[in-house]
Amino acid sequence: MPSHATNLRLKLPATCFLLEILTILLFAVFVRYDQEASASQWHQELIHRNSSHLDNDFYFRYPSFQDVHTMIFIGFGFLMTFLKRYGFGSVAFNFLIAAFAIQWSTLVQGFFHSFHNGKIHVGIESMINADFCSGAVLISFGAVLGKTSPVQLLLMTLFEVTLFGLNEYILLSLLGAKDAGGSMTIHAFGAYFGLMVSRVLYRPQLDKSRQREGSVYHSDVFAMIGTLFLWIFWPSFNSAITTHGDDQHRTVVNTYFSLAASTLATFGMSSLINGEGKLDMVHIQNAALAGGVVVGTAGEMMLTPFGAMTAGFLAGLISTLGFKFLTPLLDSRLKIQDTCGVHNLHGMPGVLGALLGVLVSAVATHDVYGDGMYDVFPFIAEGSWTASYQAVVQLCALLVTLGFAVIGGSIVGAILKMNFLASPPDTQCFEDQVYWEVPEAHHDGYGHMPHIAPDDPDKSTDA
Amino acid sequence: MPSHATNLRLKLPATCFLLEILTILLFAVFVRYDQEASASQWHQELIHRNSSHLDNDFYFRYPSFQDVHTMIFIGFGFLMTFLKRYGFGSVAFNFLIAAFAIQWSTLVQGFFHSFHNGKIHVGIESMINADFCSGAVLISFGAVLGKTSPVQLLLMTLFEVTLFGLNEYILLSLLGAKDAGGSMTIHAFGAYFGLMVSRVLYRPQLDKSRQREGSVYHSDVFAMIGTLFLWIFWPSFNSAITTHGDDQHRTVVNTYFSLAASTLATFGMSSLINGEGKLDMVHIQNAALAGGVVVGTAGEMMLTPFGAMTAGFLAGLISTLGFKFLTPLLDSRLKIQDTCGVHNLHGMPGVLGALLGVLVSAVATHDVYGDGMYDVFPFIAEGSWTASYQAVVQLCALLVTLGFAVIGGSIVGAILKMNFLASPPDTQCFEDQVYWEVPEAHHDGYGHMPHIAPDDPDKSTDA
Amino acid sequence: MPSHATNLRLKLPATCFLLEILTILLFAVFVRYDQEASASQWHQELIHRNSSHLDNDFYFRYPSFQDVHTMIFIGFGFLMTFLKRYGFGSVAFNFLIAAFAIQWSTLVQGFFHSFHNGKIHVGIESMINADFCSGAVLISFGAVLGKTSPVQLLLMTLFEVTLFGLNEYILLSLLGAKDAGGSMTIHAFGAYFGLMVSRVLYRPQLDKSRQREGSVYHSDVFAMIGTLFLWIFWPSFNSAITTHGDDQHRTVVNTYFSLAASTLATFGMSSLINGEGKLDMVHIQNAALAGGVVVGTAGEMMLTPFGAMTAGFLAGLISTLGFKFLTPLLDSRLKIQDTCGVHNLHGMPGVLGALLGVLVSAVATHDVYGDGMYDVFPFIAEGSWTASYQAVVQLCALLVTLGFAVIGGSIVGAILKMNFLASPPDTQCFEDQVYWEVPEAHHDGYGHMPHIAPDDPDKSTDA
Repeated sequence: MPSHATNLRLKLPATCFLLEILTILLFAVFVRYDQEASASQWHQELIHRNSSHLDNDFYFRYPSFQDVHTMIFIGFGFLMTFLKRYGFGSVAFNFLIAAFAIQWSTLVQGFFHSFHNGKIHVGIESMINADFCSGAVLISFGAVLGKTSPVQLLLMTLFEVTLFGLNEYILLSLLGAKDAGGSMTIHAFGAYFGLMVSRVLYRPQLDKSRQREGSVYHSDVFAMIGTLFLWIFWPSFNSAITTHGDDQHRTVVNTYFSLAASTLATFGMSSLINGEGKLDMVHIQNAALAGGVVVGTAGEMMLTPFGAMTAGFLAGLISTLGFKFLTPLLDSRLKIQDTCGVHNLHGMPGVLGALLGVLVSAVATHDVYGDGMYDVFPFIAEGSWTASYQAVVQLCALLVTLGFAVIGGSIVGAILKMNFLASPPDTQCFEDQVYWEVPEAHHDGYGHMPHIAPDDPDKSTDA
Repeated sequence: MPSHATNLRLKLPATCFLLEILTILLFAVFVRYDQEASASQWHQELIHRNSSHLDNDFYFRYPSFQDVHTMIFIGFGFLMTFLKRYGFGSVAFNFLIAAFAIQWSTLVQGFFHSFHNGKIHVGIESMINADFCSGAVLISFGAVLGKTSPVQLLLMTLFEVTLFGLNEYILLSLLGAKDAGGSMTIHAFGAYFGLMVSRVLYRPQLDKSRQREGSVYHSDVFAMIGTLFLWIFWPSFNSAITTHGDDQHRTVVNTYFSLAASTLATFGMSSLINGEGKLDMVHIQNAALAGGVVVGTAGEMMLTPFGAMTAGFLAGLISTLGFKFLTPLLDSRLKIQDTCGVHNLHGMPGVLGALLGVLVSAVATHDVYGDGMYDVFPFIAEGSWTASYQAVVQLCALLVTLGFAVIGGSIVGAILKMNFLASPPDTQCFEDQVYWEVPEAHHDGYGHMPHIAPDDPDKSTDA
Repeated sequence: MPSHATNLRLKLPATCFLLEILTILLFAVFVRYDQEASASQWHQELIHRNSSHLDNDFYFRYPSFQDVHTMIFIGFGFLMTFLKRYGFGSVAFNFLIAAFAIQWSTLVQGFFHSFHNGKIHVGIESMINADFCSGAVLISFGAVLGKTSPVQLLLMTLFEVTLFGLNEYILLSLLGAKDAGGSMTIHAFGAYFGLMVSRVLYRPQLDKSRQREGSVYHSDVFAMIGTLFLWIFWPSFNSAITTHGDDQHRTVVNTYFSLAASTLATFGMSSLINGEGKLDMVHIQNAALAGGVVVGTAGEMMLTPFGAMTAGFLAGLISTLGFKFLTPLLDSRLKIQDTCGVHNLHGMPGVLGALLGVLVSAVATHDVYGDGMYDVFPFIAEGSWTASYQAVVQLCALLVTLGFAVIGGSIVGAILKMNFLASPPDTQCFEDQVYWEVPEAHHDGYGHMPHIAPDDPDKSTDA
């Protein structure tokens, strides 16, 4: 073990090296520092603007970027370590996917959004956007966690990032929708894309691996590292690319209160739906975050703290109920095996967040926004659109996103079905030993189960 | 198990939902964005001040806020995961308490500090203050850890936050004391409040659960995540709401050096008081942080790096000695069972920090502070008060705080004694299985102990 | 156990207390707040500059400082927790070393760099530099991890910090080399210093402890906390003390892309060099970080994203190959036992980074840098030096660093060989029980091995 089919020896190096070299070559041709990161251009700009080094946008975006960066690599990575025998794959494939996604999305988003004179210009804003895009792919990863090889995951990243960029371009640039925190572009897109991939890759024999599809005591504590870093930095996520000033400030306030409300909703509902009134770590780890997702679109709007909390409260309730009642149904009825329950954390709350955006757009008035209308709804401020029209645009944006996710996920799922991509057999899902050198036999993290592969030589991870 | 008495099924949902809905309704009536987070008001202000978006206070408080936020949710949460069978309760009840406390304290602190024209205005400053208040409750949680139900904890939060707000109002607004990092308002208050609650809830039969009141190897490593995040971000905690400029800068410098000195004191003392010269993780996890607590009041003053280090060094020594000698005495003589030893980390260093504030206030001179006196000691700067008078005020503030903590903690303890609050029996303290779905029997995190409840069905946490 | 020789009871307290008291006394005599942290001086400066509190450099350095601080205490600390029986020592000795190093280096770097009128002035910049210096010591710690007592480690810190300060002074102030992210001063210096210490402390009988020199499942997951925090915050590390404006911005961009490229290189190579194509956590934990080290010198230069990625890609490949092929050779041929493989993560990539600095300096032109040349290469900008001369200076800086590291490490190794420093015997390396109270016998974190010391009384860590 692994059998020939899951041996990565040629497939993974070839995929990693080819993708990275291709990316580097494309960077060589197309990517340049933006004006604020280039020595000569920034110094010209300084004179031109009669400005100071301290006005460089770096100082006003970088702390938010680092919070987002922590969410992507620590937050998503550790959230998925709850599986008892898939801790390495969870945190490290998350790392691999994100490391590739941020490079590839720099190219894709660059082509769509900042391609000037044949060059893509990169700096702190492109870095935030690249991290955002990787977030969508990691959501999809949550749906197929433990059932895919790293080769499949890299291919999924390649295609999903590209489709993400196209969808985002249509939403933000062509339609004129608002979605700063990505309820639609990131959460709904990532979730439904991943669910469709999982549907196409349906494993009728997955029951043979079910005994590994759970947690052990310490893996649940590891997962809380992910949960809490996602929770505390979500205000930064939703505000990282909104307009400076009141917009960023307000988005942070809204997200903070929405998350707090969804946390109490989750604890209450988790106890209510359990036969003995006991709390379930899966709910706490996931549904308490739904408050961040649900204000991804409306967070920059004049949602009011009351509105944010109401939305967060409902999202927490719905998400918890989803884990209990919907996830098993998706599996048994729709043949969608959703390892991390991304439908509950990102799918439904993302759609709810998009609809909240429709609602809050529809009631926007000049009285409430004042001159701030130019930042939040520029077309309404200019008088080109009415608030109702903006609401219709927001609704269309949701539909376009769902279309892209469902069709794109189906196609990419079909591609990933190709049988030379080192996918694990149904009996070996949720199992690190397929792709990893795992330390010698021990109970730690492995419960009581006997070793699966009796011929597996004892190995230390130490070279 | 759990017996009917500890079944949360109706009690916890009812408490969570009622408190959250009450909070949301109060927010609807009273809470509005502050001027820097409101679209119309900030844009008016921009014109009025001839200012730029980049002057929004968001940019000068938010990075500190996020450090504090990390301390509250990750720092406190993981610090308490040292218990071998209470990792879920530690990190997740911490999460629940803090999520409710930040909402409730926004209301309470808002009424006391920023109630204008019938409205409370929220933004980055109110968020920092709300997080601070939740810190006090989490300190109290440390004293009763493993011996209280989440229903009791939510009620404790409700009352403690209210009393915290009142005490803080008296100290800072009525008396005119200084306490930016909360040696008094947060640490001494939280510790003595929690110790009094624990005293009232004294469990004479707690010995029946003592075998669970310890750590396992990996739970001690988890706890170090908490310790280190508290340690690295403590400079942000003490400086987060001080005046901009030299005050924040100086507070950070003082806290940085105080913590470093308390760390060496802790390692030295831990080894010295052990029969075999061995180090004890409990000391390292806790006493090394005493340097942050002890400069909570004086950190913004002209303490000098030398003064900060001396204070930190002494605090580390005293705190370590407290764990070794005082905690057992509090239990046996005073019937105060202090699970996390909050008396050693927050109680004594908090009082010491208050006294340091008395001392440093008493020697404040215009020579040393220059025009900076207006920021640190406005009444001395104006000539209304002498330095000695400020010192007397600081001392009174400590006494008021201790009074509030002791009386408040006693009353709240009595309330929590009501026997329908799902408190665990003496035989089931420090045990996650009472309130949580715990993964199937395994050794990981559980040492060699047999399962307590033979009739506990094997359950996976996965829905 | 521990035998008399490893009993810390007098040795560690004496070392901690003497070093700390000495440090405090030196601070009392020499250390003062810098102008931006002093109440009177900053307020004078405000009037003088007609400036605002918000121009205090605190706001433009502190977020980067906190990222660096996280890397030092969480990043390095948890990276080393991969050892199955040395988790306490890894994370806590890391803590002890860093807490002393930041104090001592404040003095040493202060004497060399900011000694004016008999005083050292401290503030946010000195704090960043002190953290940087502690990073070098922690790299050396990685080479001797598990084989040294905390007394030895504190002495190593005392001497290494002093030599670090001297080497840094020669490089940056006397030679005029550039090394903002420390490829030379931090990584190459720390690595080769530590390797020489390890060489002098060579243990021919270390095989008796080899069964402990590996990981268990959960210790590898703990180590990923360290890896990922280092990875995400490395852009802050390399940019923390570069000139404000485009320099910091560009350094961040370069480091971000270099790390991403090294991550894909590491995954590919790790699989390629394994007989079964399996990935190795040691490689992922370490070699994926080589991309941060390799742009430590050139990161602030106009390296281009393409150049950064190429360098990162190569560094990841070389580092992974080093773990597989070079570490065993260093041990068997050169008698250098390198516990964490610092030669692969810091040694070779540090030298490579220095050479990259030589190359990028050599091709610097006014066309590319414009007025930004003054910030990156002031001597070239002034016309005193040609680009080629700067390149020669960079190369000399590398040679000086290697000389200091090799000679200094040898001397300090010889000092640490003194036999009253409580060094563990060859049979007791990589074992927490030598210096720590370890919780009662359990499997968690300990694999299947029987207890080493049959007479070890069962102890709880709880006081």
